[in-house]
Amino acid sequence: MSTANEPGRSVASRLLQVMFSFDAEHDRLSLAELTRMTGMPHATVRRLAQELLSAGVLEQTEDRRFVVGLRLWELGTMSPRSMPLRSAALPFMEDLHAALRQHVQLAVLEGLEAVIVERISAPTALGLVSQVGGRLPLHSSGVGKVLLAHGGAELFGQVTATGLRAYTPSTITDPARLRADLAECRRAGFAVVREETSPDAHSVAVPVFGPEGNVMAALSVVFAAGTANLNAIVPALVAAGRGVSRRMGGDRSIKGPTPPPWRTG
Amino acid sequence: MSTANEPGRSVASRLLQVMFSFDAEHDRLSLAELTRMTGMPHATVRRLAQELLSAGVLEQTEDRRFVVGLRLWELGTMSPRSMPLRSAALPFMEDLHAALRQHVQLAVLEGLEAVIVERISAPTALGLVSQVGGRLPLHSSGVGKVLLAHGGAELFGQVTATGLRAYTPSTITDPARLRADLAECRRAGFAVVREETSPDAHSVAVPVFGPEGNVMAALSVVFAAGTANLNAIVPALVAAGRGVSRRMGGDRSIKGPTPPPWRTG
Repeated sequence: MSTANEPGRSVASRLLQVMFSFDAEHDRLSLAELTRMTGMPHATVRRLAQELLSAGVLEQTEDRRFVVGLRLWELGTMSPRSMPLRSAALPFMEDLHAALRQHVQLAVLEGLEAVIVERISAPTALGLVSQVGGRLPLHSSGVGKVLLAHGGAELFGQVTATGLRAYTPSTITDPARLRADLAECRRAGFAVVREETSPDAHSVAVPVFGPEGNVMAALSVVFAAGTANLNAIVPALVAAGRGVSRRMGGDRSIKGPTPPPWRTG
Repeated sequence: MSTANEPGRSVASRLLQVMFSFDAEHDRLSLAELTRMTGMPHATVRRLAQELLSAGVLEQTEDRRFVVGLRLWELGTMSPRSMPLRSAALPFMEDLHAALRQHVQLAVLEGLEAVIVERISAPTALGLVSQVGGRLPLHSSGVGKVLLAHGGAELFGQVTATGLRAYTPSTITDPARLRADLAECRRAGFAVVREETSPDAHSVAVPVFGPEGNVMAALSVVFAAGTANLNAIVPALVAAGRGVSRRMGGDRSIKGPTPPPWRTG
């Protein structure tokens, strides 16, 4: 094991490259496929794959293809950004799902996208392409807008710098309009998205506050146009967002109702 | 990056050792702690941790400690032994939880233990030490007994070889008695455990069959002594186990009811 024949690359980075070859579209890979995807010599890939098998990071199926191993899944559950949040949110998500019979999603910010860390699907509701571990755009999804609205100026600059992709005719692609939309989301305490990521899919999303007053996640309800009433969804979702925030220690950041005049005067 | 100073260890295996230093008891580690736990030189650990940070496998908290990163969690969701099973089982687990108001657990075999891949907790039910990503012994837990009962002679040999630890006075520590208990579990189609892992905790567990007729998981209900009736739990749990098996393509392996005599005669 030496890097002498590839001076620019460390063994560690090559091992990580083999690991991260796996994704939703490539969840079962043969040695030949791994070799092609990484562009490394066959013998190197075989040796690295063997190390990953020994550690349980990868497992091998009966047809000799590699899949992500349960040991890696176990290690992933240690991420403080997934499991504690997920445990706190799940009971509220179940209640929302029972009350509304629509998809309920929980997402966090990762890079310039929203990653879905939990989802409860309604079998009779809208077909969704997204799944747990999947990603959604920040500028066009409900959870994305909530995370972007509370992500600060730097994140907004990065997201708009490369242009805002139009997923549907309704996607907001003008940065100035998006900025106004996000300001409204912060003011109202929730985001409403109408067919901006997929045709026919609407969503409503609210922030989950953490102990430092930061927005650590977003919770959303996704539904087909015409199957649900915003007036029915918003209060239940706002209440659930506050409930999860309270469980995560973000009580102080929860916006209260507008105080009556005799208290502010 | 060279292994010359530690000829017996590859860089890859050292990187994996740093990664797997994290577990439920060690989920936030400083560089000094990682150095102590791995026994590697400080400079090596720092360089490997930097590689892991760059890849998103680790993240750094504000106090400079390392935690498992969301990117690793995402990669873990690609494990075919967790997410597809979990998605298939969750609706049935929710229904069981709603009907029984007790903890519902889903576990798979990993090494010589059962790993909990999903759990729905009843807030008012028994306090549990186990959690998602946590492990349970094969010889004394409900899910463990189901997995062990269907795991073959080699697994039974490995589990009994090092002695059966007595977690409570009720734990079965005699291999011959355990073997008879597992045979009964296979015959009945479910396992019943009474305070064999923790005092006051009972559980009932059933197998989940996969497409090759293998037992790919076990589903259980865990409850405090005196809070639930076995007669109420078993039928609901058996039905749920069959439902999840059907979703996983394990229909043919589901044991039907004993046929009436006029059909077998």
